[in-house]
Amino acid sequence: MTNTQVTLVQIDNYGPWTVTPEPRREVDLQTLQSRLYADLAQLIGNRGGYVFFTRFDNMIAVTNGLDESDHAMIQESIGNRYPVTISLSVATGRTPSQALSDATERLQERGSAQDKERREILCGRTIGDEHRTDEDVRIAHFDVIDATGEYTDQVGAFESFIEIEQGYAALMKYMHGQNDSLSFFVGGDNVIAACPSLSKAEFEDAIAHVSEIAGVDLRVGVGTGATAHEAGMDAKHALEHCRARGDEVWFTDS
Amino acid sequence: MTNTQVTLVQIDNYGPWTVTPEPRREVDLQTLQSRLYADLAQLIGNRGGYVFFTRFDNMIAVTNGLDESDHAMIQESIGNRYPVTISLSVATGRTPSQALSDATERLQERGSAQDKERREILCGRTIGDEHRTDEDVRIAHFDVIDATGEYTDQVGAFESFIEIEQGYAALMKYMHGQNDSLSFFVGGDNVIAACPSLSKAEFEDAIAHVSEIAGVDLRVGVGTGATAHEAGMDAKHALEHCRARGDEVWFTDS
Amino acid sequence: MTNTQVTLVQIDNYGPWTVTPEPRREVDLQTLQSRLYADLAQLIGNRGGYVFFTRFDNMIAVTNGLDESDHAMIQESIGNRYPVTISLSVATGRTPSQALSDATERLQERGSAQDKERREILCGRTIGDEHRTDEDVRIAHFDVIDATGEYTDQVGAFESFIEIEQGYAALMKYMHGQNDSLSFFVGGDNVIAACPSLSKAEFEDAIAHVSEIAGVDLRVGVGTGATAHEAGMDAKHALEHCRARGDEVWFTDS
Amino acid sequence: MTNTQVTLVQIDNYGPWTVTPEPRREVDLQTLQSRLYADLAQLIGNRGGYVFFTRFDNMIAVTNGLDESDHAMIQESIGNRYPVTISLSVATGRTPSQALSDATERLQERGSAQDKERREILCGRTIGDEHRTDEDVRIAHFDVIDATGEYTDQVGAFESFIEIEQGYAALMKYMHGQNDSLSFFVGGDNVIAACPSLSKAEFEDAIAHVSEIAGVDLRVGVGTGATAHEAGMDAKHALEHCRARGDEVWFTDS
Repeated sequence: MTNTQVTLVQIDNYGPWTVTPEPRREVDLQTLQSRLYADLAQLIGNRGGYVFFTRFDNMIAVTNGLDESDHAMIQESIGNRYPVTISLSVATGRTPSQALSDATERLQERGSAQDKERREILCGRTIGDEHRTDEDVRIAHFDVIDATGEYTDQVGAFESFIEIEQGYAALMKYMHGQNDSLSFFVGGDNVIAACPSLSKAEFEDAIAHVSEIAGVDLRVGVGTGATAHEAGMDAKHALEHCRARGDEVWFTDS
Repeated sequence: MTNTQVTLVQIDNYGPWTVTPEPRREVDLQTLQSRLYADLAQLIGNRGGYVFFTRFDNMIAVTNGLDESDHAMIQESIGNRYPVTISLSVATGRTPSQALSDATERLQERGSAQDKERREILCGRTIGDEHRTDEDVRIAHFDVIDATGEYTDQVGAFESFIEIEQGYAALMKYMHGQNDSLSFFVGGDNVIAACPSLSKAEFEDAIAHVSEIAGVDLRVGVGTGATAHEAGMDAKHALEHCRARGDEVWFTDS
Repeated sequence: MTNTQVTLVQIDNYGPWTVTPEPRREVDLQTLQSRLYADLAQLIGNRGGYVFFTRFDNMIAVTNGLDESDHAMIQESIGNRYPVTISLSVATGRTPSQALSDATERLQERGSAQDKERREILCGRTIGDEHRTDEDVRIAHFDVIDATGEYTDQVGAFESFIEIEQGYAALMKYMHGQNDSLSFFVGGDNVIAACPSLSKAEFEDAIAHVSEIAGVDLRVGVGTGATAHEAGMDAKHALEHCRARGDEVWFTDS
Repeated sequence: MTNTQVTLVQIDNYGPWTVTPEPRREVDLQTLQSRLYADLAQLIGNRGGYVFFTRFDNMIAVTNGLDESDHAMIQESIGNRYPVTISLSVATGRTPSQALSDATERLQERGSAQDKERREILCGRTIGDEHRTDEDVRIAHFDVIDATGEYTDQVGAFESFIEIEQGYAALMKYMHGQNDSLSFFVGGDNVIAACPSLSKAEFEDAIAHVSEIAGVDLRVGVGTGATAHEAGMDAKHALEHCRARGDEVWFTDS
């Protein structure tokens, strides 16, 4: 039984800021966004969490192991170093999808993402240490079978990108609708998903769906742990097993 | 008539590096990728170019205004500061799509993306100053109509993300197949495309297609310039015009 | 009674790397060094420690609150993201000076800073939680009285810098020789020192010495805590007290 | 005859910002400062200039080759990405010292460094292309003879640092007072100076002075060029010559 702690990170009033007093240089916005994401990756990641860039102005993190004071420190540190501030809303649930819905609702109740007065909200509750277990987080790490041989080295760079993007769009929608999972493209041909407990058959169905809809063949390694980092490293090792042995789905505890 | 100069940026032998000697911490990979992208955004962007993160291991840039020595300096600077190196392949063409295809092919001829011996390739030719014009680059800047009101403040954060992602997947495929354009999600609800000369009707068709396929309503500002930065700032102003006036498509030179 | 935990951070074989195969661009070295320092500031600082840039190739940190696994993670994270690696040697002692001497000796025993084979050493022992107290760390925060009015706004930028630099050179030598303290310039007109328990008179003597030798008038706030961050925030508040009240030396617990 | 273009970079109203509404976390200030410096190193450095961190709140750059629009872009890019803004004042002169004095005076006339209303000043004039020559910039690169063998591998890390710091304090004061030069510690055991045309004997005297006052033995390579980067690479090669041949002073054009 998973118990995923999810944090929604939202840049306060970001859209208006990007065009005030007039549109800012795109490269500066890109630099700001990607460095803010990198900083959160370090701040959250080095406490065992995972953060995904998602839309950049709204980022999603799996934060089991981080308490309220960690969240407060992260919010303060970003506020000290960037021209923008962030709001953080945290929630937990049996499925990542439910947790994120609760976190979103809680933040929406505090005001619009483009409300000038709504700044540095920190809301929601983290899981107390006494309620944490080694099975709280489940991570699935997908990649495309022979992406380099079939795409990168063979077809145009944009054609490769289209394939991977269509595969991701199909996978993220299916995994959310069918499996209450949150799936994120993380670069290359890799997608990482925060999942509830799912069976091998459920992963096989997801892979079959993407193959049918988008024509992209995936495989997946699945791991479990007390934190996203632990579950994620397990999943990486499981994926290495798939690469070596030709399996389509592998659980570290299989 | 556009004359887009496109540079394909490929991290050398990146996939194998990420799992050697065993899988590296995901947060460190995320940090490395996003900072490498931010550095390229500054190096290329502050010379008038645009770079898009694309798959992170393969990034695509519009580099009109950067010559061979600029490319060499960028390659050297990254090699001096990262544990990985990059190859750069540049090509030009009437359409961004054609230019990128040529750049990809040129790099593929030099070896696989996962060839250990293929490092720091710098190939292709930039446009000589005497052949550059103020109409070489055309940039279209799309966003979602009322994304904050309809999505961010209303539905779950992942539901919003799914909508934007499906819209992007439909747009990037259509714009490539029909219009020889390269479209990139750049955060929030924004997509930036490098295009050839397209008519208002062609943009309207693209928007209608995305609305039909993905149910997402877009608008677009279009700009032209000697560099991506100039064309892109024009496009941002055109998009501001759409926001203020309710237009669906606006060209700065309309 | 203080019990300072000090970590020596040394970039492995850095000097030779900077000129191999030929001298690297100075700006890339500067960027690499300052970003490596910034990353350590976040990694160590967000666990309650302080790190000082010192010589950049050898950095010194006060790391009470960080255990061996924190040190291992920091070393791994840097190794994953930079073209260079770091060695870490940790020691504790009643005085910061003694702790650093022990840490240095321990690392020197493992090989030269320019030994190609000596990579990613992690040696020494951290303080067990059961031995930590709220008085383990003492931090003194110095600044120059009216630096802006007397220097920055009045004389040339380099003349100001000379004054501050001479003051720092005198202070760091005196505080080490007389008070077993480690003093670091941290920007502006600020110097932060890790100290053992020192009396008000000992700080007054240090200030008088710098005034006499270098003609620079300092004041200092002193704080105590379980970590460098806690002691340092105390010291900052004590220094604010000096600014407001005109005191030369202030202890938060005075 | 040198014609050095010097830019003074000053963070606007920085001191008050660091303690408003109360003192900010030291590690965030350190991170902000060192990353701001790294960004300037890239922005200025990849146009052929050098920037030195100096006091971090006041940085000094040699900017031959950068015109007014480059300065404006750098100022805008920093303003877009940091919670603080910078003012830039540029001046030229036969000696670096004179140029910096003029740049400082010009900025001081526009208001105090701690004036809330004085933001993003951009003043002074750059050298027109038609007046630039290949001998405009002279850079001297000093290091300590056998620093690793005599200090880093032999004595405590702070004792080494004291030696290097005392040597730097003596050198920077002497080179300014006697030779109208601006000398900056750049990490390790390295000092880089922007100089006017100086003879071999003048460098020998500087080295003798530091040896006498601080007991530190230096050597120096000297280079000339149209930009700091060109002169600096020349100086690095000259210093390599010293290392290989045992010379104390070497000019690339000797």
